[in-house]
Amino acid sequence: MSRIRTEEEKQVARRMTREKQKEDWLQQQEEKRSGHERYMKEAVKQAKKAAALGEVPIGCVIVQEGKIIGRGYNRRNTDKSTLAHAEIAAIRRASRAVGDWRLEDCALYVTLEPCQMCAGAIIQARIPEVFIGCMNPKAGCAGSVYNLLEEPAFNHQAHVFRGLLEEECSQLMKGFFKDLRLRTGRESQEMAKTERRRETAKTEGRQETES
Amino acid sequence: MSRIRTEEEKQVARRMTREKQKEDWLQQQEEKRSGHERYMKEAVKQAKKAAALGEVPIGCVIVQEGKIIGRGYNRRNTDKSTLAHAEIAAIRRASRAVGDWRLEDCALYVTLEPCQMCAGAIIQARIPEVFIGCMNPKAGCAGSVYNLLEEPAFNHQAHVFRGLLEEECSQLMKGFFKDLRLRTGRESQEMAKTERRRETAKTEGRQETES
Repeated sequence: MSRIRTEEEKQVARRMTREKQKEDWLQQQEEKRSGHERYMKEAVKQAKKAAALGEVPIGCVIVQEGKIIGRGYNRRNTDKSTLAHAEIAAIRRASRAVGDWRLEDCALYVTLEPCQMCAGAIIQARIPEVFIGCMNPKAGCAGSVYNLLEEPAFNHQAHVFRGLLEEECSQLMKGFFKDLRLRTGRESQEMAKTERRRETAKTEGRQETES
Repeated sequence: MSRIRTEEEKQVARRMTREKQKEDWLQQQEEKRSGHERYMKEAVKQAKKAAALGEVPIGCVIVQEGKIIGRGYNRRNTDKSTLAHAEIAAIRRASRAVGDWRLEDCALYVTLEPCQMCAGAIIQARIPEVFIGCMNPKAGCAGSVYNLLEEPAFNHQAHVFRGLLEEECSQLMKGFFKDLRLRTGRESQEMAKTERRRETAKTEGRQETES
Protein backbone atom coordinates (compact mmCIF):
# COMPACT_ATOMS: atom_id res chain seq x y z
CA MET A 1 0.00 0.00 0.00
CA SER A 2 1.41 3.44 -0.92
CA ARG A 3 1.57 6.02 1.86
CA ILE A 4 -0.04 9.47 1.55
CA ARG A 5 2.38 11.98 -0.03
CA THR A 6 3.18 15.33 1.59
CA GLU A 7 2.48 18.61 -0.25
CA GLU A 8 6.23 19.03 -0.74
CA GLU A 9 6.58 15.61 -2.36
CA LYS A 10 3.64 16.42 -4.64
CA GLN A 11 5.31 19.68 -5.67
CA VAL A 12 8.57 17.88 -6.47
CA ALA A 13 6.63 15.30 -8.50
CA ARG A 14 4.81 18.04 -10.40
CA ARG A 15 8.07 19.85 -11.16
CA MET A 16 9.66 16.62 -12.38
CA THR A 17 6.66 15.91 -14.64
CA ARG A 18 6.96 19.42 -16.06
CA GLU A 19 10.69 19.01 -16.68
CA LYS A 20 10.10 15.67 -18.39
CA GLN A 21 7.35 17.14 -20.61
CA LYS A 22 9.67 20.03 -21.52
CA GLU A 23 12.48 17.66 -22.50
CA ASP A 24 10.14 15.45 -24.54
CA TRP A 25 8.73 18.49 -26.31
CA LEU A 26 12.20 19.86 -27.09
CA GLN A 27 13.22 16.44 -28.44
CA GLN A 28 10.16 16.33 -30.72
CA GLN A 29 10.81 19.86 -32.03
CA GLU A 30 14.48 19.06 -32.62
CA GLU A 31 13.31 16.27 -34.95
CA LYS A 32 11.14 18.76 -36.84
CA ARG A 33 13.86 21.44 -36.86
CA SER A 34 13.94 21.97 -40.65
CA GLY A 35 10.18 22.65 -40.69
CA HIS A 36 10.56 25.21 -37.91
CA GLU A 37 13.51 26.82 -39.67
CA ARG A 38 11.26 27.54 -42.64
CA TYR A 39 9.01 29.69 -40.42
CA MET A 40 11.97 31.37 -38.74
CA LYS A 41 13.24 32.35 -42.20
CA GLU A 42 9.91 34.14 -42.67
CA ALA A 43 10.51 35.95 -39.36
CA VAL A 44 14.00 36.90 -40.61
CA LYS A 45 12.39 38.35 -43.75
CA GLN A 46 10.21 40.50 -41.49
CA ALA A 47 13.29 41.59 -39.48
CA LYS A 48 14.95 42.76 -42.70
CA LYS A 49 11.97 45.05 -43.36
CA ALA A 50 12.70 46.69 -40.00
CA ALA A 51 16.41 47.08 -40.90
CA ALA A 52 15.42 48.74 -44.19
CA LEU A 53 13.65 51.41 -42.11
CA GLY A 54 16.70 51.89 -39.89
CA GLU A 55 14.93 50.08 -37.02
CA VAL A 56 16.49 47.35 -34.84
CA PRO A 57 15.93 44.25 -37.02
CA ILE A 58 13.40 42.09 -35.17
CA GLY A 59 10.77 40.03 -36.98
CA CYS A 60 8.00 37.66 -35.96
CA VAL A 61 5.45 35.29 -37.49
CA ILE A 62 2.59 33.32 -35.92
CA VAL A 63 1.62 29.95 -37.38
CA GLN A 64 -1.63 28.01 -37.03
CA GLU A 65 -2.00 24.55 -38.59
CA GLY A 66 0.97 25.13 -40.88
CA LYS A 67 -0.28 28.51 -42.11
CA ILE A 68 1.19 31.92 -41.23
CA ILE A 69 -1.70 33.97 -39.82
CA GLY A 70 0.24 36.94 -38.42
CA ARG A 71 3.43 38.75 -39.39
CA GLY A 72 5.15 41.69 -37.73
CA TYR A 73 8.39 43.64 -37.55
CA ASN A 74 9.79 46.34 -35.32
CA ARG A 75 8.56 49.83 -36.30
CA ARG A 76 8.96 51.57 -32.91
CA ASN A 77 10.64 54.75 -34.18
CA THR A 78 8.79 54.84 -37.50
CA ASP A 79 5.36 54.56 -35.84
CA LYS A 80 6.46 56.47 -32.72
CA SER A 81 4.79 53.79 -30.62
CA THR A 82 6.01 51.44 -27.88
CA LEU A 83 3.40 48.98 -29.13
CA ALA A 84 5.02 48.69 -32.57
CA HIS A 85 7.22 45.74 -31.51
CA ALA A 86 7.31 42.78 -33.94
CA GLU A 87 5.50 40.34 -31.62
CA ILE A 88 2.68 42.76 -30.74
CA ALA A 89 2.02 43.47 -34.43
CA ALA A 90 1.97 39.73 -35.22
CA ILE A 91 -0.34 38.97 -32.28
CA ARG A 92 -2.73 41.75 -33.36
CA ARG A 93 -2.94 40.32 -36.89
CA ALA A 94 -3.25 36.70 -35.73
CA SER A 95 -6.09 37.63 -33.33
CA ARG A 96 -7.88 39.37 -36.16
CA ALA A 97 -7.40 36.30 -38.38
CA VAL A 98 -8.82 33.81 -35.86
CA GLY A 99 -11.39 36.22 -34.37
CA ASP A 100 -10.34 35.46 -30.80
CA TRP A 101 -7.95 36.90 -28.20
CA ARG A 102 -6.89 33.33 -27.39
CA LEU A 103 -4.24 31.96 -29.76
CA GLU A 104 -4.26 28.56 -28.10
CA ASP A 105 -3.28 26.41 -31.08
CA CYS A 106 -0.63 28.71 -32.51
CA ALA A 107 3.18 28.83 -32.55
CA LEU A 108 5.16 32.07 -32.48
CA TYR A 109 8.56 32.49 -34.17
CA VAL A 110 10.66 35.53 -33.26
CA THR A 111 14.22 36.42 -34.25
CA LEU A 112 15.17 37.93 -30.84
CA GLU A 113 14.22 36.92 -27.29
CA PRO A 114 11.06 38.89 -26.34
CA CYS A 115 11.11 41.87 -23.96
CA GLN A 116 8.93 41.99 -20.82
CA MET A 117 5.94 43.48 -22.71
CA CYS A 118 6.02 40.98 -25.58
CA ALA A 119 6.63 37.97 -23.30
CA GLY A 120 3.64 39.21 -21.29
CA ALA A 121 1.50 39.50 -24.42
CA ILE A 122 2.45 35.93 -25.44
CA ILE A 123 1.26 34.64 -22.05
CA GLN A 124 -1.90 36.78 -22.14
CA ALA A 125 -2.71 35.41 -25.62
CA ARG A 126 -2.04 31.87 -24.29
CA ILE A 127 0.29 30.99 -27.15
CA PRO A 128 1.57 27.48 -26.32
CA GLU A 129 4.78 27.28 -28.40
CA VAL A 130 7.49 29.90 -28.84
CA PHE A 131 10.59 29.57 -31.07
CA ILE A 132 13.40 32.07 -30.48
CA GLY A 133 16.31 32.92 -32.80
CA CYS A 134 18.93 34.53 -30.58
CA MET A 135 18.84 35.58 -26.95
CA ASN A 136 18.96 39.12 -25.53
CA PRO A 137 21.09 38.77 -22.35
CA LYS A 138 20.57 42.37 -21.16
CA ALA A 139 16.80 42.71 -21.51
CA GLY A 140 15.21 39.42 -22.64
CA CYS A 141 12.34 38.00 -20.61
CA ALA A 142 12.28 34.43 -21.87
CA GLY A 143 15.19 33.19 -19.81
CA SER A 144 17.76 36.03 -19.68
CA VAL A 145 16.68 38.69 -17.14
CA TYR A 146 13.39 36.92 -16.36
CA ASN A 147 11.57 33.91 -17.73
CA LEU A 148 7.97 35.08 -18.01
CA LEU A 149 7.12 32.43 -20.60
CA GLU A 150 7.70 29.43 -18.35
CA GLU A 151 6.67 30.93 -15.01
CA PRO A 152 4.61 28.38 -13.02
CA ALA A 153 2.96 31.17 -10.99
CA PHE A 154 1.02 32.40 -14.05
CA ASN A 155 -2.14 30.75 -15.37
CA HIS A 156 -0.40 29.83 -18.64
CA GLN A 157 3.08 28.61 -19.58
CA ALA A 158 4.55 28.27 -23.06
CA HIS A 159 6.99 25.69 -24.35
CA VAL A 160 10.12 27.52 -25.47
CA PHE A 161 12.67 26.45 -28.10
CA ARG A 162 15.81 28.61 -28.13
CA GLY A 163 18.53 29.01 -30.77
CA LEU A 164 16.55 28.35 -33.98
CA LEU A 165 18.66 29.83 -36.85
CA GLU A 166 20.61 31.45 -34.03
CA GLU A 167 23.65 32.40 -36.14
CA GLU A 168 21.56 34.11 -38.83
CA CYS A 169 19.42 36.02 -36.29
CA SER A 170 22.46 37.03 -34.26
CA GLN A 171 24.39 38.24 -37.36
CA LEU A 172 21.38 40.36 -38.31
CA MET A 173 21.60 42.20 -34.97
CA LYS A 174 25.41 42.46 -34.99
CA GLY A 175 25.41 43.80 -38.55
CA PHE A 176 22.80 46.42 -37.66
CA PHE A 177 24.68 47.70 -34.61
CA LYS A 178 28.04 47.68 -36.45
CA ASP A 179 26.51 49.84 -39.22
CA LEU A 180 24.97 52.11 -36.58
CA ARG A 181 28.33 52.57 -34.84
CA LEU A 182 30.05 53.28 -38.16
CA ARG A 183 27.30 55.76 -39.08
CA THR A 184 27.42 57.44 -35.70
CA GLY A 185 31.23 57.44 -35.85
CA ARG A 186 31.18 59.05 -39.30
CA GLU A 187 28.62 61.59 -38.11
CA SER A 188 30.71 62.58 -35.09
CA GLN A 189 33.83 62.78 -37.31
CA GLU A 190 31.90 65.04 -39.69
CA MET A 191 30.71 67.15 -36.76
CA ALA A 192 34.28 67.39 -35.38
CA LYS A 193 35.61 68.38 -38.84
CA THR A 194 32.94 71.08 -39.24
CA GLU A 195 33.74 72.33 -35.73
CA ARG A 196 37.48 72.46 -36.52
CA ARG A 197 36.79 74.33 -39.78
CA ARG A 198 34.63 76.84 -37.92
CA GLU A 199 37.34 77.33 -35.27
CA THR A 200 40.04 77.82 -37.97
CA ALA A 201 37.82 80.31 -39.82
CA LYS A 202 37.23 82.20 -36.57
CA THR A 203 40.98 82.29 -35.71
CA GLU A 204 41.89 83.38 -39.24
CA GLY A 205 39.19 86.05 -39.10
CA ARG A 206 40.59 87.31 -35.79
CA GLN A 207 44.16 87.30 -37.17
CA GLU A 208 43.01 89.27 -40.23
CA THR A 209 41.24 91.79 -38.02
CA GLU A 210 44.25 92.06 -35.72
CA SER A 211 46.77 92.45 -38.58
CA MET B 1 40.79 60.27 4.10
CA SER B 2 38.03 57.87 3.09
CA ARG B 3 39.09 54.37 1.99
CA ILE B 4 38.13 52.91 -1.40
CA ARG B 5 34.73 51.18 -1.20
CA THR B 6 34.21 47.60 -2.40
CA GLU B 7 31.70 46.82 -5.18
CA GLU B 8 29.43 45.25 -2.57
CA GLU B 9 29.45 48.40 -0.42
CA LYS B 10 28.67 50.49 -3.48
CA GLN B 11 25.70 48.24 -4.29
CA VAL B 12 24.37 48.55 -0.75
CA ALA B 13 24.76 52.33 -0.94
CA ARG B 14 22.96 52.45 -4.29
CA ARG B 15 20.10 50.32 -2.92
CA MET B 16 19.79 52.55 0.12
CA THR B 17 19.70 55.68 -2.06
CA ARG B 18 16.96 54.07 -4.15
CA GLU B 19 14.95 53.16 -1.06
CA LYS B 20 15.31 56.70 0.29
CA GLN B 21 14.21 58.24 -3.03
CA LYS B 22 11.21 55.89 -3.09
CA GLU B 23 10.17 56.88 0.42
CA ASP B 24 10.58 60.60 -0.31
CA TRP B 25 8.56 60.26 -3.51
CA LEU B 26 5.77 58.36 -1.73
CA GLN B 27 5.69 61.04 0.98
CA GLN B 28 5.38 63.80 -1.63
CA GLN B 29 2.56 61.97 -3.47
CA GLU B 30 0.75 61.32 -0.18
CA GLU B 31 0.65 65.10 0.31
CA LYS B 32 -0.86 65.52 -3.16
CA ARG B 33 -3.29 62.60 -2.68
CA SER B 34 -6.49 64.53 -3.43
CA GLY B 35 -5.07 65.69 -6.79
CA HIS B 36 -4.18 62.11 -7.69
CA GLU B 37 -7.60 60.87 -6.60
CA ARG B 38 -9.16 63.17 -9.18
CA TYR B 39 -7.32 61.33 -11.96
CA MET B 40 -8.09 57.92 -10.45
CA LYS B 41 -11.79 58.86 -10.51
CA GLU B 42 -11.38 59.36 -14.27
CA ALA B 43 -9.84 55.87 -14.49
CA VAL B 44 -12.83 54.53 -12.52
CA LYS B 45 -15.16 56.18 -15.06
CA GLN B 46 -13.31 54.26 -17.78
CA ALA B 47 -13.63 51.02 -15.81
CA LYS B 48 -17.39 51.51 -15.64
CA LYS B 49 -17.50 51.66 -19.44
CA ALA B 50 -15.90 48.18 -19.46
CA ALA B 51 -18.48 46.92 -16.94
CA ALA B 52 -21.27 48.25 -19.15
CA LEU B 53 -19.99 45.94 -21.91
CA GLY B 54 -19.87 42.98 -19.52
CA GLU B 55 -16.06 43.16 -19.42
CA VAL B 56 -13.92 42.97 -16.26
CA PRO B 57 -14.05 46.62 -15.06
CA ILE B 58 -10.52 47.98 -15.48
CA GLY B 59 -9.84 51.58 -16.50
CA CYS B 60 -6.76 53.69 -17.06
CA VAL B 61 -5.75 57.30 -17.79
CA ILE B 62 -2.38 58.86 -18.61
CA VAL B 63 -1.65 62.40 -17.48
CA GLN B 64 0.95 64.86 -18.78
CA GLU B 65 1.39 68.26 -17.14
CA GLY B 66 -2.02 68.04 -15.48
CA LYS B 67 -3.83 67.07 -18.69
CA ILE B 68 -5.28 63.65 -19.52
CA ILE B 69 -3.70 62.64 -22.85
CA GLY B 70 -4.77 58.97 -22.98
CA ARG B 71 -7.79 57.02 -21.75
CA GLY B 72 -8.53 53.31 -22.00
CA TYR B 73 -10.72 50.53 -20.64
CA ASN B 74 -10.76 46.77 -20.92
CA ARG B 75 -12.44 45.56 -24.14
CA ARG B 76 -10.73 42.17 -24.47
CA ASN B 77 -13.83 40.11 -25.26
CA THR B 78 -15.59 42.87 -27.20
CA ASP B 79 -12.60 43.49 -29.49
CA LYS B 80 -11.48 39.82 -29.39
CA SER B 81 -7.93 41.04 -28.79
CA THR B 82 -5.38 40.41 -26.05
CA LEU B 83 -4.10 43.92 -26.72
CA ALA B 84 -7.41 45.53 -25.72
CA HIS B 85 -6.36 45.92 -22.05
CA ALA B 86 -7.03 49.34 -20.48
CA GLU B 87 -3.34 50.32 -20.10
CA ILE B 88 -2.39 49.34 -23.67
CA ALA B 89 -5.25 51.42 -25.09
CA ALA B 90 -4.27 54.43 -22.94
CA ILE B 91 -0.58 54.10 -23.89
CA ARG B 92 -1.48 53.92 -27.60
CA ARG B 93 -3.54 57.13 -27.33
CA ALA B 94 -0.96 58.96 -25.20
CA SER B 95 1.84 58.07 -27.66
CA ARG B 96 -0.26 59.41 -30.50
CA ALA B 97 -0.93 62.61 -28.51
CA VAL B 98 2.75 63.33 -27.79
CA GLY B 99 4.10 61.91 -31.07
CA ASP B 100 6.70 59.76 -29.33
CA TRP B 101 7.00 56.19 -28.01
CA ARG B 102 8.64 57.62 -24.90
CA LEU B 103 6.15 58.86 -22.29
CA GLU B 104 8.90 60.13 -20.01
CA ASP B 105 7.03 62.96 -18.31
CA CYS B 106 3.71 61.19 -17.84
CA ALA B 107 1.88 59.53 -14.95
CA LEU B 108 -0.36 56.49 -15.40
CA TYR B 109 -3.43 55.80 -13.23
CA VAL B 110 -4.99 52.33 -13.33
CA THR B 111 -7.78 50.84 -11.23
CA LEU B 112 -6.21 47.35 -10.98
CA GLU B 113 -2.58 46.23 -10.65
CA PRO B 114 -1.21 45.69 -14.20
CA CYS B 115 -0.64 42.21 -15.67
CA GLN B 116 2.77 41.11 -17.03
CA MET B 117 2.05 42.56 -20.52
CA CYS B 118 0.84 45.95 -19.30
CA ALA B 119 3.59 46.30 -16.68
CA GLY B 120 6.03 45.50 -19.50
CA ALA B 121 4.45 48.14 -21.76
CA ILE B 122 4.74 50.75 -18.97
CA ILE B 123 8.47 50.02 -18.66
CA GLN B 124 8.96 49.98 -22.44
CA ALA B 125 7.20 53.38 -22.68
CA ARG B 126 9.43 54.63 -19.82
CA ILE B 127 6.50 55.99 -17.83
CA PRO B 128 8.05 57.27 -14.58
CA GLU B 129 5.02 57.33 -12.23
CA VAL B 130 2.31 54.71 -11.77
CA PHE B 131 -0.72 54.98 -9.46
CA ILE B 132 -2.63 51.78 -8.73
CA GLY B 133 -6.13 51.41 -7.28
CA CYS B 134 -6.30 47.87 -5.94
CA MET B 135 -3.88 44.97 -6.19
CA ASN B 136 -4.34 41.68 -8.07
CA PRO B 137 -2.70 39.08 -5.81
CA LYS B 138 -3.05 36.17 -8.25
CA ALA B 139 -1.71 37.74 -11.44
CA GLY B 140 -0.47 41.30 -10.82
CA CYS B 141 3.05 42.21 -11.91
CA ALA B 142 3.59 45.40 -9.93
CA GLY B 143 4.38 43.72 -6.64
CA SER B 144 2.10 40.67 -6.37
CA VAL B 145 3.44 37.80 -8.51
CA TYR B 146 6.32 39.88 -9.89
CA ASN B 147 7.37 43.49 -9.64
CA LEU B 148 8.32 44.41 -13.18
CA LEU B 149 7.82 48.13 -12.56
CA GLU B 150 10.58 48.50 -9.97
CA GLU B 151 13.04 45.89 -11.27
CA PRO B 152 16.62 47.25 -11.05
CA ALA B 153 17.77 44.83 -13.79
CA PHE B 154 15.76 46.71 -16.43
CA ASN B 155 16.90 49.97 -18.07
CA HIS B 156 13.94 51.83 -16.58
CA GLN B 157 12.12 51.74 -13.23
CA ALA B 158 8.87 53.49 -12.33
CA HIS B 159 7.82 54.97 -9.01
CA VAL B 160 4.72 53.11 -7.83
CA PHE B 161 1.95 54.37 -5.53
CA ARG B 162 -0.43 51.62 -4.41
CA GLY B 163 -3.92 51.83 -2.89
CA LEU B 164 -5.23 55.07 -4.44
CA LEU B 165 -9.06 54.96 -4.07
CA GLU B 166 -8.46 51.34 -3.19
CA GLU B 167 -11.90 50.72 -1.68
CA GLU B 168 -13.76 52.10 -4.70
CA CYS B 169 -11.61 50.18 -7.21
CA SER B 170 -11.88 46.99 -5.19
CA GLN B 171 -15.68 47.26 -4.84
CA LEU B 172 -15.92 47.71 -8.62
CA MET B 173 -14.22 44.33 -9.13
CA LYS B 174 -16.11 42.56 -6.33
CA GLY B 175 -19.46 43.86 -7.61
CA PHE B 176 -18.66 42.68 -11.12
CA PHE B 177 -17.72 39.15 -10.06
CA LYS B 178 -20.70 38.89 -7.68
CA ASP B 179 -23.05 39.81 -10.55
CA LEU B 180 -21.26 37.33 -12.80
CA ARG B 181 -21.69 34.53 -10.23
CA LEU B 182 -25.36 35.41 -9.78
CA ARG B 183 -25.87 35.49 -13.53
CA THR B 184 -24.03 32.21 -14.05
CA GLY B 185 -25.96 30.74 -11.11
CA ARG B 186 -29.29 31.87 -12.55
CA GLU B 187 -28.30 30.51 -15.95
CA SER B 188 -27.45 27.11 -14.54
CA GLN B 189 -30.70 27.12 -12.50
CA GLU B 190 -32.61 27.96 -15.70
CA MET B 191 -30.80 25.20 -17.55
CA ALA B 192 -31.55 22.72 -14.75
CA LYS B 193 -35.23 23.76 -14.75
CA THR B 194 -35.50 23.34 -18.54
CA GLU B 195 -33.79 19.97 -18.26
CA ARG B 196 -36.22 18.87 -15.52
CA ARG B 197 -39.19 20.02 -17.64
CA ARG B 198 -37.88 18.10 -20.62
CA GLU B 199 -37.39 14.99 -18.48
CA THR B 200 -40.95 15.29 -17.04
CA ALA B 201 -42.41 15.79 -20.53
CA LYS B 202 -40.53 12.70 -21.76
CA THR B 203 -41.71 10.59 -18.82
CA GLU B 204 -45.30 11.79 -19.22
CA GLY B 205 -45.12 11.10 -22.99
CA ARG B 206 -43.88 7.57 -22.27
CA GLN B 207 -46.64 7.03 -19.69
CA GLU B 208 -49.28 8.22 -22.19
CA THR B 209 -47.89 5.88 -24.86
CA GLU B 210 -47.81 2.98 -22.39
CA SER B 211 -51.34 3.57 -21.10
